[in-house]
Amino acid sequence: MASNSFGNFLKLTTFGESHGVSIGGILDGVPPGIQLDLEKIQKDLDRRKPGQSAIVTQRKESDIVHFKSGIFEGLTTGLPIGFEIHNTDNKSKDYGHIKDVYRPNHSDYTYDQKYGQRDYRGGGRSSARETASWVVAGAIAKQILNDVHFTAYTHAVGDLELQSEDSVDFDVIEKNPVRCPNVMRAIEMEDYIKKIRKEGDTIGGIVKCVISNVPKNLGDPIFEKLHANLGKAMMTINAVKGFDYGSGFEGVSMKGSEHNDLFNVDGTTKTNHSGGIQGGISNGMNINFRVAFKPVATLMQKQKTINKNAQEVEMQGKGRHDPCVVPRAIPVVEAMSALVLADAFLQNKSLN
Amino acid sequence: MASNSFGNFLKLTTFGESHGVSIGGILDGVPPGIQLDLEKIQKDLDRRKPGQSAIVTQRKESDIVHFKSGIFEGLTTGLPIGFEIHNTDNKSKDYGHIKDVYRPNHSDYTYDQKYGQRDYRGGGRSSARETASWVVAGAIAKQILNDVHFTAYTHAVGDLELQSEDSVDFDVIEKNPVRCPNVMRAIEMEDYIKKIRKEGDTIGGIVKCVISNVPKNLGDPIFEKLHANLGKAMMTINAVKGFDYGSGFEGVSMKGSEHNDLFNVDGTTKTNHSGGIQGGISNGMNINFRVAFKPVATLMQKQKTINKNAQEVEMQGKGRHDPCVVPRAIPVVEAMSALVLADAFLQNKSLN
Amino acid sequence: MASNSFGNFLKLTTFGESHGVSIGGILDGVPPGIQLDLEKIQKDLDRRKPGQSAIVTQRKESDIVHFKSGIFEGLTTGLPIGFEIHNTDNKSKDYGHIKDVYRPNHSDYTYDQKYGQRDYRGGGRSSARETASWVVAGAIAKQILNDVHFTAYTHAVGDLELQSEDSVDFDVIEKNPVRCPNVMRAIEMEDYIKKIRKEGDTIGGIVKCVISNVPKNLGDPIFEKLHANLGKAMMTINAVKGFDYGSGFEGVSMKGSEHNDLFNVDGTTKTNHSGGIQGGISNGMNINFRVAFKPVATLMQKQKTINKNAQEVEMQGKGRHDPCVVPRAIPVVEAMSALVLADAFLQNKSLN
Amino acid sequence: MASNSFGNFLKLTTFGESHGVSIGGILDGVPPGIQLDLEKIQKDLDRRKPGQSAIVTQRKESDIVHFKSGIFEGLTTGLPIGFEIHNTDNKSKDYGHIKDVYRPNHSDYTYDQKYGQRDYRGGGRSSARETASWVVAGAIAKQILNDVHFTAYTHAVGDLELQSEDSVDFDVIEKNPVRCPNVMRAIEMEDYIKKIRKEGDTIGGIVKCVISNVPKNLGDPIFEKLHANLGKAMMTINAVKGFDYGSGFEGVSMKGSEHNDLFNVDGTTKTNHSGGIQGGISNGMNINFRVAFKPVATLMQKQKTINKNAQEVEMQGKGRHDPCVVPRAIPVVEAMSALVLADAFLQNKSLN
Repeated sequence: MASNSFGNFLKLTTFGESHGVSIGGILDGVPPGIQLDLEKIQKDLDRRKPGQSAIVTQRKESDIVHFKSGIFEGLTTGLPIGFEIHNTDNKSKDYGHIKDVYRPNHSDYTYDQKYGQRDYRGGGRSSARETASWVVAGAIAKQILNDVHFTAYTHAVGDLELQSEDSVDFDVIEKNPVRCPNVMRAIEMEDYIKKIRKEGDTIGGIVKCVISNVPKNLGDPIFEKLHANLGKAMMTINAVKGFDYGSGFEGVSMKGSEHNDLFNVDGTTKTNHSGGIQGGISNGMNINFRVAFKPVATLMQKQKTINKNAQEVEMQGKGRHDPCVVPRAIPVVEAMSALVLADAFLQNKSLN
Repeated sequence: MASNSFGNFLKLTTFGESHGVSIGGILDGVPPGIQLDLEKIQKDLDRRKPGQSAIVTQRKESDIVHFKSGIFEGLTTGLPIGFEIHNTDNKSKDYGHIKDVYRPNHSDYTYDQKYGQRDYRGGGRSSARETASWVVAGAIAKQILNDVHFTAYTHAVGDLELQSEDSVDFDVIEKNPVRCPNVMRAIEMEDYIKKIRKEGDTIGGIVKCVISNVPKNLGDPIFEKLHANLGKAMMTINAVKGFDYGSGFEGVSMKGSEHNDLFNVDGTTKTNHSGGIQGGISNGMNINFRVAFKPVATLMQKQKTINKNAQEVEMQGKGRHDPCVVPRAIPVVEAMSALVLADAFLQNKSLN
Repeated sequence: MASNSFGNFLKLTTFGESHGVSIGGILDGVPPGIQLDLEKIQKDLDRRKPGQSAIVTQRKESDIVHFKSGIFEGLTTGLPIGFEIHNTDNKSKDYGHIKDVYRPNHSDYTYDQKYGQRDYRGGGRSSARETASWVVAGAIAKQILNDVHFTAYTHAVGDLELQSEDSVDFDVIEKNPVRCPNVMRAIEMEDYIKKIRKEGDTIGGIVKCVISNVPKNLGDPIFEKLHANLGKAMMTINAVKGFDYGSGFEGVSMKGSEHNDLFNVDGTTKTNHSGGIQGGISNGMNINFRVAFKPVATLMQKQKTINKNAQEVEMQGKGRHDPCVVPRAIPVVEAMSALVLADAFLQNKSLN
Repeated sequence: MASNSFGNFLKLTTFGESHGVSIGGILDGVPPGIQLDLEKIQKDLDRRKPGQSAIVTQRKESDIVHFKSGIFEGLTTGLPIGFEIHNTDNKSKDYGHIKDVYRPNHSDYTYDQKYGQRDYRGGGRSSARETASWVVAGAIAKQILNDVHFTAYTHAVGDLELQSEDSVDFDVIEKNPVRCPNVMRAIEMEDYIKKIRKEGDTIGGIVKCVISNVPKNLGDPIFEKLHANLGKAMMTINAVKGFDYGSGFEGVSMKGSEHNDLFNVDGTTKTNHSGGIQGGISNGMNINFRVAFKPVATLMQKQKTINKNAQEVEMQGKGRHDPCVVPRAIPVVEAMSALVLADAFLQNKSLN
């Protein structure tokens, strides 16, 4: 089944496995005449790439994106943008030990059941390496939505959570390896991740995202609601287990009289429990949501599991993996958000 | 923008406003030769309909579904099934007072901004009445997936939450108006909803859903992952603010060594933090997820708001509304789940 | 497989069988704020309906369209327009004789092979009755494209073809039952159809269509070229065997130096072998194309055929059928053209 | 607008301009476990490539396809197959003279009107070079449909048409540069093309295609009829002006009693005016159709035209072009046919 495309109007189609020749994609539907800032795209890719700090995987990918089409003399042409990222550090030998083994909480077992034939090296197509292509596309989407700001950050690592009294300073997010908007919490989280890594273990976390300066009218009821598409986009990211927006799971225990966002006469609202979206359509207020990431499944410690022949075996992760996926997931959350909003933005134009 | 279709393979397209002639839809992609049990479909619709108990809206819709096509001599023909539900109790006069008023946390404002022309009666197309059509389609989807069981139930009403020590008995769900699987909690919840209603207020809640006897291999990476489509489906339901599956938001604070589901030699797992889905594909274990509902926005008490002319006005809900949407949302959660799984089931057949 | 939707942006989804309760559809993507002229829609439907003249089928359907949604106080709301046409003259007994028989050149055999379960009455879903729903949707599409004119007409009935020296007067098309733009030819054609009917036989024909006042920039290369979508739309109409546009099959024997349309300085062209479309995009010149219809397969004479049990049987058409499908196909050709152009028109807006 | 994908189930998405870095695509939906014969793919590409004989363009592209993903240890994995063909002979200087000029019957004018920014070199994305990617995808589609045979050939070059009394020998098609199945006619056609080229002119032609050993049940009414999708696929090929299948335009002047294909008791038919498709579904008989190609628009002689500034200018083709597109279009017709049938084949599986 053709299931490797995302979006209707701005459509990303991707290919590639973690340890194949390359990964890449085609971004179709970019309007013509946009002067693309290619450095900004590469910069987002660098924020996602392995090896950028001591608390992420030490796999060494240069992750340079090569564009093939759809840009002429610096401007987009309205035609599909093909792009490719070469896999330069694909040490396939690291993965020989898992050829016939099903790693717990990976997709090894389900891919094998569904497809039979499977590229087991580094998780093949199910690897989060795929998200590099999304970051390229999302960085273009951001440039379609020039004035909209996407800010994702680490809200929690395990039980270490930003508290309501903690100050939040977006300017420090990119200045610490955890990407937390509070310097003190960032240090705690970093130390915690290091401790977890030392144990050969992993830990989950929560990313928050704030989208500001959002145009009104994005999202199409009934089945293309903006928050439903954001939810799908987030759930598509590797290791994500949950999503909520606005008041979210906390809104459950509020009364309607507390939860309702009263209007100012200009149509803005005094509170924003709605998270910037009402009836599936953006109302111009900030969009904010949370994304829950599970702990990475690959452990640097011994685990019991089974192999293809239904035998119990013992295995230990040998590749280079992240002890906590959240810091590198930040640009991915932004990218997928930007793809969703740009799609809705282009769709909305047909009404006018 | 054409945004009123859901699903690729089993595609539901719907029409209709709360207070128009009727609502309905077309379900396309149902395989031929299925002996449809029409009573079961009507029964699911009855579980959703207004007026069924003292704690839901007293709007009186008979909600009888009429089939128009796609069924011949009791069997599906593989061709689209058209259906219609008449709006019999559309007291439009109840809504004259909101014609020019934007009710807080409704879609009045955003629909007006986006579309200009708007059927304000009962929320028009944004009304949860729309979900009756989904229940019809979902009930057919259940019959495509004959052996799969969908059980949704009320897990929380406001702060009243099922505790881990509470017994859960699926057989009592349909025997209490709250649809809670624990009789004692059900009574507490019912009393609480009545109290809330007396205050003219509303309250949120959490629905849990368990899908058992799930075929393996459902879901298509990368962009049609089963849990991502479930997430989108749930976020599409009116008043939903959050979704998580398996370990969900709680999984965030687990270590990988705790979270990993170790295999039995038959491919089943000893725990199920994965929620029955690994890498976007069902592994045959139970699928379980949570859905967070906000408190209903329409209050039976005075609220300040604005009108079309940017004037402050005072309003009070006059229609007949639910103090807590969760009990009636149960069949909707099941229906949307069934649509997602049946779609994935039909898609998966192309591989074999 | 969900295959009963047409269009991306303006999406028509249909249901219904010839002798079921009703046929109908949902037209999704109509922009808001259009003051629909419902009489014009009904008028197009009347041009297609049976029994309108002596040379078409005498089946008596009133073919009144009922709208269910998407229109409020006379204006479109941007939300899906549901509609239904009741089957009032469905004399199912007329079809009992073909229950187990496969009529030659009908879809009886292929539907039975593919679906197993089949509504044999009047061809079921494969009946051209389905096109009534297309005419409704197309009539709305015409109102989206207010200034564009769609004129289809009968160019040939069997060997009787309009000659290059024949005058063509669009004003007489609707004034003769054949819908030919030349009165003399119209009479010849009418006589010929009557003669064919008397023989219990049927005959094919060619429809030409001219679309004038076309906006530039409609059509999206590479795989949504305007003429490719027009071609698909025409090939979708029952009994159509061929399509060409601009110079078409005749262009094959022209040299490039004859065929090239030289430009005027305003971008219009001196000739129009391109048929108003270059590289898949409209250039503002008239779009013109031809559609070839085969003779109707149902004959009022004895034919040998087979039945479900692979036995030779003899059959004779007993229903009420058209001796030549072309006159009633005229509004269908226009409708499908309008759907294609309106879809491209709405898509194009996203670029601006 | 995202319009560079073809197919639902087997979906080809392409990128690239004639004189950019490369062209290529992603073929999504290929079932797993197919042992791809890569040489066969390259061989089809060689049949399409420039410079293969004296009567085609002398542009020298090696046209080697590089696969990036979706194939592991020789077998397809069910995941998207990325591929790329480098543009090695892109002499962009050949095209400087047309930078601001609109060539007659090319898409220069319409692309400029629609997109503003345009890669004018060699026609950019509108170049028939794009079809190389289709041939790659089609060659894979053929291997999905292992037992189905696709045979396209030159039926006419200008007025030189195969006559009904001419013998047709599929074995000689690939043995003459015109790809005509009759050696004598092939020589006539070749001489004629050479004469036309000497004049600096071009000529059109007709391709016929026969698909044999077709599975029953391919095609999905109402809006995914097999012949409608074939028609769209053919109309998508550069320079195509017309399509018909089975009896086609000739069927127009037949009576129903002549046209009807009477059944044999095994469900095959004695004649095949239906062209192997009834009601949009394959019946197992051969599928046959015709495709009309206009003369190539680029002439090696002086022509008057206009430029961007609405000035009359004189131009002469300077690149390397085909005097008749038909011989090189043969593998493209086969490829697009194979994509359509493979898509229908995969879709049909969901019914079983």
